[in-house]
Amino acid sequence: METPFDVSAYCSQLTSEARASARCLAWAPSFAKDRWLRWGADRLEREADAILAANEHDLRAAADHGLTSAQIDRLTLTRPRLAAMAAGLREVAALPDPIGEIVEGGVRPNGLEIRKVRVPIGVILFLYESRPNVTVDAAALAVKSGNALILRGGKEALHTNRALHFVLQEALRECQLPTHAVQLVTHVDRAIVGELLRRGDDIDLCIPRGGENLIRRVVAEARMPVLKHYRGVCHVFVDRSADLDMAERIVINAKCQRPGVCNAMETLLIHHDLAETFLPRIVEQLHAQGVEIRGCPETVRVAAYVKPATDDDYAAEFLDRILAVRVVPDLDAALDHIARFGSKHTDAIVTQDLQSAQRFTREVDAAAVMVNASTRFHDGYEFGLGAEIGISTDKFHARGPCGLRELTTTKYIVMGNGQIRG
Amino acid sequence: METPFDVSAYCSQLTSEARASARCLAWAPSFAKDRWLRWGADRLEREADAILAANEHDLRAAADHGLTSAQIDRLTLTRPRLAAMAAGLREVAALPDPIGEIVEGGVRPNGLEIRKVRVPIGVILFLYESRPNVTVDAAALAVKSGNALILRGGKEALHTNRALHFVLQEALRECQLPTHAVQLVTHVDRAIVGELLRRGDDIDLCIPRGGENLIRRVVAEARMPVLKHYRGVCHVFVDRSADLDMAERIVINAKCQRPGVCNAMETLLIHHDLAETFLPRIVEQLHAQGVEIRGCPETVRVAAYVKPATDDDYAAEFLDRILAVRVVPDLDAALDHIARFGSKHTDAIVTQDLQSAQRFTREVDAAAVMVNASTRFHDGYEFGLGAEIGISTDKFHARGPCGLRELTTTKYIVMGNGQIRG
Repeated sequence: METPFDVSAYCSQLTSEARASARCLAWAPSFAKDRWLRWGADRLEREADAILAANEHDLRAAADHGLTSAQIDRLTLTRPRLAAMAAGLREVAALPDPIGEIVEGGVRPNGLEIRKVRVPIGVILFLYESRPNVTVDAAALAVKSGNALILRGGKEALHTNRALHFVLQEALRECQLPTHAVQLVTHVDRAIVGELLRRGDDIDLCIPRGGENLIRRVVAEARMPVLKHYRGVCHVFVDRSADLDMAERIVINAKCQRPGVCNAMETLLIHHDLAETFLPRIVEQLHAQGVEIRGCPETVRVAAYVKPATDDDYAAEFLDRILAVRVVPDLDAALDHIARFGSKHTDAIVTQDLQSAQRFTREVDAAAVMVNASTRFHDGYEFGLGAEIGISTDKFHARGPCGLRELTTTKYIVMGNGQIRG
Repeated sequence: METPFDVSAYCSQLTSEARASARCLAWAPSFAKDRWLRWGADRLEREADAILAANEHDLRAAADHGLTSAQIDRLTLTRPRLAAMAAGLREVAALPDPIGEIVEGGVRPNGLEIRKVRVPIGVILFLYESRPNVTVDAAALAVKSGNALILRGGKEALHTNRALHFVLQEALRECQLPTHAVQLVTHVDRAIVGELLRRGDDIDLCIPRGGENLIRRVVAEARMPVLKHYRGVCHVFVDRSADLDMAERIVINAKCQRPGVCNAMETLLIHHDLAETFLPRIVEQLHAQGVEIRGCPETVRVAAYVKPATDDDYAAEFLDRILAVRVVPDLDAALDHIARFGSKHTDAIVTQDLQSAQRFTREVDAAAVMVNASTRFHDGYEFGLGAEIGISTDKFHARGPCGLRELTTTKYIVMGNGQIRG
């Protein structure tokens, strides 16, 4: 007779192994972490056959899991994709180690020497869906920043994730780092996630990646901080004074260069004075690029190929070749629209007017605000952070692209020579 | 017939007023915020009679609310206490404004100019108990850092808080700042708190102050980040090499100078080699200061006045003249004890050995780690931050004392001249 699976005991095991590994990893020297990243990269390439076979296994079951062709594509590993993962590990190895940095410090009037130093967060729970490269990316960033990681991927990718995790863990063993620094939840029991999210004392941070509903569920249940963004409803506002050729380039790039990502434009706002000139021209261009336009009555009136937009369209993250368009009387109306419908992710203005640029960057409440540049630049690599674990639209801890430094915290170290408080 | 109270509508009103005020306050100039702080201070002193009368009202009902004498003392306002509140407002006015600081920045290879600038968090919900000075302190720090505040204090202090809030709001009006920048929840319906905690999109941060049970309830329900500490179980470890006179001063100060606060010592760890010499002497001293000692078998053996300690004693935040004591064989055992029982708040070592100091500061996972100084120094004023809104033992966003800067976030401002992504 089989013993019933004990969710609580399983989770206790995971979190206590993670905590012990985190204690050990916290001050592991950079060379050991970087060696692990490079050896892990080598091993990924060396064990490509086994990993691809495991992926094959998942792909055969993909139809039964009801995966769409886009999801199957994301799940599929190939030799070039494995090589890209390995290259990613080597890139993280080449980044500077954030741990140990003295963020600030000084001497107090009573002689106490205070240093604020950068240390790892501790234990991180990472929840994600069927993209197996995330397994490797997340492990690389977490371990390089000294954190222990608990990975919980989608069940459609379980065999692939197991094979990738095995490689990473073998490399940990070879480098004499704690092998439980990276753990994979291999039981598919959904109760595990709920139990882990309740363990706010054992897990220091949860990072969910996936659709808005998944993330909202995680936020509702989690008792630890959650690093996340719900949606990217990014705006471009073309101001009266815009250079129209520049505006055209930016609008096309922001919408069409990669429509399925969170920093792509979803709503175009046009100053009323441009309604007769720029608007028909940009709609023509967007239409030629295969973009469906849903517009305000003014847009419908002046441009062809436009369906009427609803408030739902202005709130939507299409992630597709669909764009909401609205003519606004002035900058204030653009700011109000963004405050009402925006997701605080990325918003851009195209303008030649200094005051408009200043007001827009001050008054728009978003993780990144762009002047005369495509929203698509909101990205860890583009901002010079190196690899990123995601983009945060939260205002707490980290806002914008999250790289190695965003996976750290600080602690105060106080050196005295017998000071007591009076 | 009375209309039933609509919790949801009430909360929507609060949060939408707060959001509108936050938008306006975000870039209010420092001089306007500082004027409000100084005028608010003047008004507090001018309207002392009305405030003290409201406090009288609360004090008359205190017995009915079942308040202890310590709680009644905390609730009681006097002219000197009002003067101290006013002085606090003037001190915050004198602190530098954190908003607008360029935290970092530079130019990317493609010519994009990126600045990371400090901005307010937005809307903050502050939950607290019967200490009315918190009403004024929290408002001062929140508004100075450009945030809108929703205050929810204890019902025992409602009349006092109303009077204080009225003064602050009148001063906002006089200074032409949004009068809803500081709002007070005046309905005592407990459902309001639950409803506000669910509004993660409307409220950016919750700060609860109170007992551990209250804070755990808040963390379980909140859908926004929570800035908090649960407990302060602070340790002092007296290492073999300690200067024993220094150790005695630090131990007595850490336990006795103010036993009821979170950075007071709760457990004393003593290196085994000092069990016959230092231990009896320090127990004698502590006993003379009226401290009850609960010790390990070794402590019971060598020192008088010692009751046997349980694991519960090692995990306890006594907030009183009670101390747990344990003899440990070495530094490793001290580190293990702290990792097991500590609350990651403040831990100190007394030592003359460099390697012990280095290992302790590296390996203890706490917001502040002290060498040869009293745990009592873990405090915003002592660290030079100015006023603090509390101490965080979280690892997210802010760890340690939280002043004005910890009530801010950042946003990226990107200036281009037509860059698009390739």
